[in-house]
Amino acid sequence: MTAQTPPMGWNSWDCFGAAVNEEQVKANTDYIAENLKEYGWEYVVVDIQWYQPFADSHEYQPFSELVMDAFGRLIPAPNRFPSSANNTGFKKLAKYVHDRGLKFGIHIMRGMPRMAAHKDLKIKDSDFTAKQVADPNSICFWNPDMYGLKCESNEAGARAYYDSIFKMYASWGVDFVKVDDIAREYPRCRKEIELIHDAVKNCGRDIVLSLSPGPAPIAQAEHLKANANMWRITDDFWDEWRLLYDMFDRAETWCIHAGNGRWPDADMLPVGPIRQVYDPAERTRFTQAEQRTMMTLWCILRSPLMIGGEMTGFDPFTLGLLTNRNILDMHRLARHSHPVWRRRAAGTEWVLWTAACAEGGTYGALFNMGEGDAQLALPLEELELRGPLSCTDLWTGRQDAVAGSLQLTVEKHGVAAFLLR
Amino acid sequence: MTAQTPPMGWNSWDCFGAAVNEEQVKANTDYIAENLKEYGWEYVVVDIQWYQPFADSHEYQPFSELVMDAFGRLIPAPNRFPSSANNTGFKKLAKYVHDRGLKFGIHIMRGMPRMAAHKDLKIKDSDFTAKQVADPNSICFWNPDMYGLKCESNEAGARAYYDSIFKMYASWGVDFVKVDDIAREYPRCRKEIELIHDAVKNCGRDIVLSLSPGPAPIAQAEHLKANANMWRITDDFWDEWRLLYDMFDRAETWCIHAGNGRWPDADMLPVGPIRQVYDPAERTRFTQAEQRTMMTLWCILRSPLMIGGEMTGFDPFTLGLLTNRNILDMHRLARHSHPVWRRRAAGTEWVLWTAACAEGGTYGALFNMGEGDAQLALPLEELELRGPLSCTDLWTGRQDAVAGSLQLTVEKHGVAAFLLR
Amino acid sequence: MTAQTPPMGWNSWDCFGAAVNEEQVKANTDYIAENLKEYGWEYVVVDIQWYQPFADSHEYQPFSELVMDAFGRLIPAPNRFPSSANNTGFKKLAKYVHDRGLKFGIHIMRGMPRMAAHKDLKIKDSDFTAKQVADPNSICFWNPDMYGLKCESNEAGARAYYDSIFKMYASWGVDFVKVDDIAREYPRCRKEIELIHDAVKNCGRDIVLSLSPGPAPIAQAEHLKANANMWRITDDFWDEWRLLYDMFDRAETWCIHAGNGRWPDADMLPVGPIRQVYDPAERTRFTQAEQRTMMTLWCILRSPLMIGGEMTGFDPFTLGLLTNRNILDMHRLARHSHPVWRRRAAGTEWVLWTAACAEGGTYGALFNMGEGDAQLALPLEELELRGPLSCTDLWTGRQDAVAGSLQLTVEKHGVAAFLLR
Amino acid sequence: MTAQTPPMGWNSWDCFGAAVNEEQVKANTDYIAENLKEYGWEYVVVDIQWYQPFADSHEYQPFSELVMDAFGRLIPAPNRFPSSANNTGFKKLAKYVHDRGLKFGIHIMRGMPRMAAHKDLKIKDSDFTAKQVADPNSICFWNPDMYGLKCESNEAGARAYYDSIFKMYASWGVDFVKVDDIAREYPRCRKEIELIHDAVKNCGRDIVLSLSPGPAPIAQAEHLKANANMWRITDDFWDEWRLLYDMFDRAETWCIHAGNGRWPDADMLPVGPIRQVYDPAERTRFTQAEQRTMMTLWCILRSPLMIGGEMTGFDPFTLGLLTNRNILDMHRLARHSHPVWRRRAAGTEWVLWTAACAEGGTYGALFNMGEGDAQLALPLEELELRGPLSCTDLWTGRQDAVAGSLQLTVEKHGVAAFLLR
Repeated sequence: MTAQTPPMGWNSWDCFGAAVNEEQVKANTDYIAENLKEYGWEYVVVDIQWYQPFADSHEYQPFSELVMDAFGRLIPAPNRFPSSANNTGFKKLAKYVHDRGLKFGIHIMRGMPRMAAHKDLKIKDSDFTAKQVADPNSICFWNPDMYGLKCESNEAGARAYYDSIFKMYASWGVDFVKVDDIAREYPRCRKEIELIHDAVKNCGRDIVLSLSPGPAPIAQAEHLKANANMWRITDDFWDEWRLLYDMFDRAETWCIHAGNGRWPDADMLPVGPIRQVYDPAERTRFTQAEQRTMMTLWCILRSPLMIGGEMTGFDPFTLGLLTNRNILDMHRLARHSHPVWRRRAAGTEWVLWTAACAEGGTYGALFNMGEGDAQLALPLEELELRGPLSCTDLWTGRQDAVAGSLQLTVEKHGVAAFLLR
Repeated sequence: MTAQTPPMGWNSWDCFGAAVNEEQVKANTDYIAENLKEYGWEYVVVDIQWYQPFADSHEYQPFSELVMDAFGRLIPAPNRFPSSANNTGFKKLAKYVHDRGLKFGIHIMRGMPRMAAHKDLKIKDSDFTAKQVADPNSICFWNPDMYGLKCESNEAGARAYYDSIFKMYASWGVDFVKVDDIAREYPRCRKEIELIHDAVKNCGRDIVLSLSPGPAPIAQAEHLKANANMWRITDDFWDEWRLLYDMFDRAETWCIHAGNGRWPDADMLPVGPIRQVYDPAERTRFTQAEQRTMMTLWCILRSPLMIGGEMTGFDPFTLGLLTNRNILDMHRLARHSHPVWRRRAAGTEWVLWTAACAEGGTYGALFNMGEGDAQLALPLEELELRGPLSCTDLWTGRQDAVAGSLQLTVEKHGVAAFLLR
Repeated sequence: MTAQTPPMGWNSWDCFGAAVNEEQVKANTDYIAENLKEYGWEYVVVDIQWYQPFADSHEYQPFSELVMDAFGRLIPAPNRFPSSANNTGFKKLAKYVHDRGLKFGIHIMRGMPRMAAHKDLKIKDSDFTAKQVADPNSICFWNPDMYGLKCESNEAGARAYYDSIFKMYASWGVDFVKVDDIAREYPRCRKEIELIHDAVKNCGRDIVLSLSPGPAPIAQAEHLKANANMWRITDDFWDEWRLLYDMFDRAETWCIHAGNGRWPDADMLPVGPIRQVYDPAERTRFTQAEQRTMMTLWCILRSPLMIGGEMTGFDPFTLGLLTNRNILDMHRLARHSHPVWRRRAAGTEWVLWTAACAEGGTYGALFNMGEGDAQLALPLEELELRGPLSCTDLWTGRQDAVAGSLQLTVEKHGVAAFLLR
Repeated sequence: MTAQTPPMGWNSWDCFGAAVNEEQVKANTDYIAENLKEYGWEYVVVDIQWYQPFADSHEYQPFSELVMDAFGRLIPAPNRFPSSANNTGFKKLAKYVHDRGLKFGIHIMRGMPRMAAHKDLKIKDSDFTAKQVADPNSICFWNPDMYGLKCESNEAGARAYYDSIFKMYASWGVDFVKVDDIAREYPRCRKEIELIHDAVKNCGRDIVLSLSPGPAPIAQAEHLKANANMWRITDDFWDEWRLLYDMFDRAETWCIHAGNGRWPDADMLPVGPIRQVYDPAERTRFTQAEQRTMMTLWCILRSPLMIGGEMTGFDPFTLGLLTNRNILDMHRLARHSHPVWRRRAAGTEWVLWTAACAEGGTYGALFNMGEGDAQLALPLEELELRGPLSCTDLWTGRQDAVAGSLQLTVEKHGVAAFLLR
């Protein structure tokens, strides 16, 4: 089954915005293959507007000439992706990724290019034209490129268009598609999600379907689980403590819905060099403690893990953060994850999470949400356990025997993560 | 001052939808000139999509080729308005109307054609191009033709475009412009309303500015009064008793805001032959009593009066309805209009309105909102008057002396309207 | 008809809170009789808790022993109202007021004393007892004395109790009853209002029914008009500019509902010595301009006028404020009052009101809502008038001829009020 | 620690309403001791109004004379609880229960009797009197007996009263107190909950604190977990399928908050003879399948289990329902319980729950929410498991080996519950 474990990989958005190019993708592909693949990282995802020749930042330029084929299907801008020349799309870039034992992904916006509709292009392998299928009232409020499709009033036509693009992606060798302007667009995009889900199923290739942006509405949890592999539970996440702090609420809301190919997605990890499109000196503003907090929360929640930084510029800390075997084991083996409580004690605010380990034992993570380092004695009964037990500190690897309580010291914004057996 | 009294005229929508043509406009112009002008009726207004060659009903066709000039300004479709040939716009049709002592109006949608933006046409008398001024995120939710303008982020460009179209309308001889997709679009169109207001002031011709559709928000009453001559207080009004019944609430909400060139607009009067574009046999479904109720409410409220029916097919009743001197005097002379009360009595629901008469005396209108004819004795003190007084029944012209109470018999859905002096 | 014009008088709350006594009432009665009666002021109203022996301020003391008769009817506390000895209630005090040509009013809370219910007293002239009629779940949220009645589940019992108290008030000679904890308590007190209305009608004496506190909900305007003579449109009003500023919104909301014995009530006028119960030196914090603004707004709205200050301490300004013939004429003769507009000009915010004068002519009032003195030229057409006209300044009495515009200079927080004929 | 596992027992409400008497309590105590104690059932709880001599049903009678001591503390009505004579309270009845190896519980309303406040009784071991502590504005909307306390404005006094009653309960030997009119009364009762929590801690005896009624607000989960052992997540639950159907949503909302002495409470189990106060022939309207569904949901959620029926009238099915070792093991051993999904398949609606078993293995429960029997093949991977495994059907005890999928047949409104190892 597709995405049986939560997908792990790299995405170009945090470092390159809409402007990433082939050279950058290849460099990062090489980096993953050499440094991260053995730890489970495998997807290389090209984010938004790879069809826009003039993209140069995280901003969008209205009314640009996007590169598309005669059937209104967007194709890579050859000035940014030279290997796409001769109408081969991402075939060669995907092969480059596959050749290194990795998987290739792309981002798309729901709908079809406005240009295709105004030009009334023919839809491939169908009798419909773009004017019949595009819905001029269905637009994205933060990107000017597309019209949504008439999924209700011309379902056959909308289906034909989505089938036409996913068949093309399958022919390119795409393994992962992140569809944008859709995950929080209930109820108006409910049917559009279903048509995209069907197009994925029918395209002839295993493709992971990821929906963005969030927050997806919790009331639609069952619909999302039935139609996608992952969906964003938050608006764009960046390197600010406030956003990380707030993610605990979203994680609590969604934790029971993770499992078996369905993954609430807490968004990319803004680590290492990011926002490179503005200044190559830019690095994440998260402290090391905050980065461990982030990794711990994403892993115990079993969120997909998508690196946002330019990896070739990683320092040893960042590489270590992403290659800690204990933490990545938790990402793979945690089951039934959930918060236990949130409370004030010892001058700070604490959040305690737990999960069962599929190979036996109980995971715990005690987060210090406050503004200073702090200590806490955590009785085992708070996790409904009884000692004596062996306790492994996941970040340091240190093992201790524990009888009544864990004695934990946790940095400001930091975490103590452990496995009790 | 423009629109010192509430505008009166004819509008093509109720009978011809988006499909009206020059011949129909001329025929109705002739009818007004001959039959209605002497009663104060003067505007002839061509409603939506006169620039759409293929319009054939009240429906809109997305992605149509609209007729526009090199500056992205919509111009009449010559197949429907032959006099507009040779790039003369509505000049000749306006002259036709003016020659008969009447005034000429048109409908427009806010913004510029989407086509103009995608083609990036130059904006007349400016250095801006359409791409710089159109806002791809600002669309109308019921019509696919236009993009709103970047009134905040490129005010100068938006101003230039609106100036360019109103100068063209002035050059055509337009006296009245109904701008659509705007009156209820607060807060997002607040600035757009101001720019249109400015363009009207700067165009070099007296033009009545009418904003649609409603319901305009009452919280914006002062902004509307400062920027427009009339604004819709209701969504589209048609010939259904429920809509007429509900208009009493809207009229109550807005009554104190009428006066001195500022008019809450209860929408067109669907009388006589309407929906002609589907079936020439179609007539208003309102009873005669309901039509008198409608005219009475519109007149005491001092709403603009825009006939919606195909006038050449009027029967004597309809012509009489629109040419009752007493009622039209109330439309001209009522001041400080407002409802007095709404109550159940004698087995029905009654609504009592009143107004001062600018030439002395007090208007009253007692509406029977219920499902059967009914009688009521109305003490003069309900209108804070003391007898003896002379009472003129506005619809029949009959005069009576009245001491303590008016003895009124009112049909189901009907009205007794009177002037007390 | 009762309250054919909006009631005018004095109320003990602003100066004495819950603690007013007989001596104070008599002194103020004498003052009205000598100084204000000839101007139309006539009601003397004893506000809340005249049955509470220990009241000493504007605060309430829970679980106090209230003075009541054997039928659970509250009667005056004899230590505060010695003339009520021998179970004569307010008979002698009412006579004192009547003997001076004035009218006497009292305040009550809806419901019956909690004490009466817990003691299960008999209800006069009925077979019900208090336990059967009191609703233990219907309490007031700001006063601890009463239980509301079971108006729905024991309508006959509730009716019996209300009849019993209003018959007693009638026997005392009460002319005005202000019922509290009720005007904004829709929907739960809808039926209770109707029972009180019926009790007033059946008590055998003309009694003005006033409902408090506000804001009464505008959606209930027709119910209030059908069941009461006046109802508060605002929470308690005191001598703060912000409260006066906000009253313009409430006045706009309610203006069309005034007339013919039904009066939206903007609350007492906190003028002269107020809050006497705390400090005899306390005077209104309103400036003179603000007091003229208040009087002008109340009068053009035709709100009831209830003086809140201790009148025996009035200075000449305060007496003059309340005895200006022109302003009081407007209170009596204004018809169809309403605001015209609210706008910024000349560096300040203006509000313009108008009304017809029942004896001919048009009232206008231009309020300067801003923080500095300002001037404005007001074209007559803003009031839909045409010159030449004679203009009387209501506050100064000065008369001028006016052709095109009124040239008005208005103080900060002040008003120019005028009659145009 | 108190209530380390979710409390199990019997409560008098469903069968006897407010009217239960000593004889009935003793008969049910005997029944538990003989038939249920060995399965973990231990609490015997006397529900509301044991201090009301005239209670005869589920209805409340306002203004009744409740039995209380000189300090305003309610004590058992001796006509209903003869053993309480001589001011011994529930001491003898508690001893009766304790002597049979069980625990004794009572219900109280928050606050103090209104009567105590109106009589201004002294508060035991303090200088406060009832008038100083009762808040006349804090009432219950469905029961007329009490006033809430001034927990904010007189915290010391409120604390003194709550301490005085819990010390009395401790002296009686009470093990469990259900406090009513409080769990959903946030924010106004937030402080009152804290004072009651403190009084429990300070009373000198282990007492389980249960808060009612629901739905408690999920936003207050951490406050509830910090201050109570159990709290109602639902309004009163009765024997209607609609209520049981709806409980799945509440269970999903609250499931992650169960554990370690803190239990979301789905309310009593209306099984066997209920509503006995009206008709001794009354039995639960739930089908047997529905009762198994209810028990399964309550047990996997680890809700407290409180039998609502008159146990001496149990039939074999009901006794079997409550003594199934496998199901009760799940109630004791389930950890990290949560729903997996809710979906339509095979013509019905399914809900799948899971939990880890503290002794190894995974619990699952597949509920058929639809209106007909149905079958489903459930792949083990839906529970993130891989075969071969042993599967024990909890209700029948049957064991099977399972490789890829479970083949499940489930009755209308029924459940298949199993343990996989």
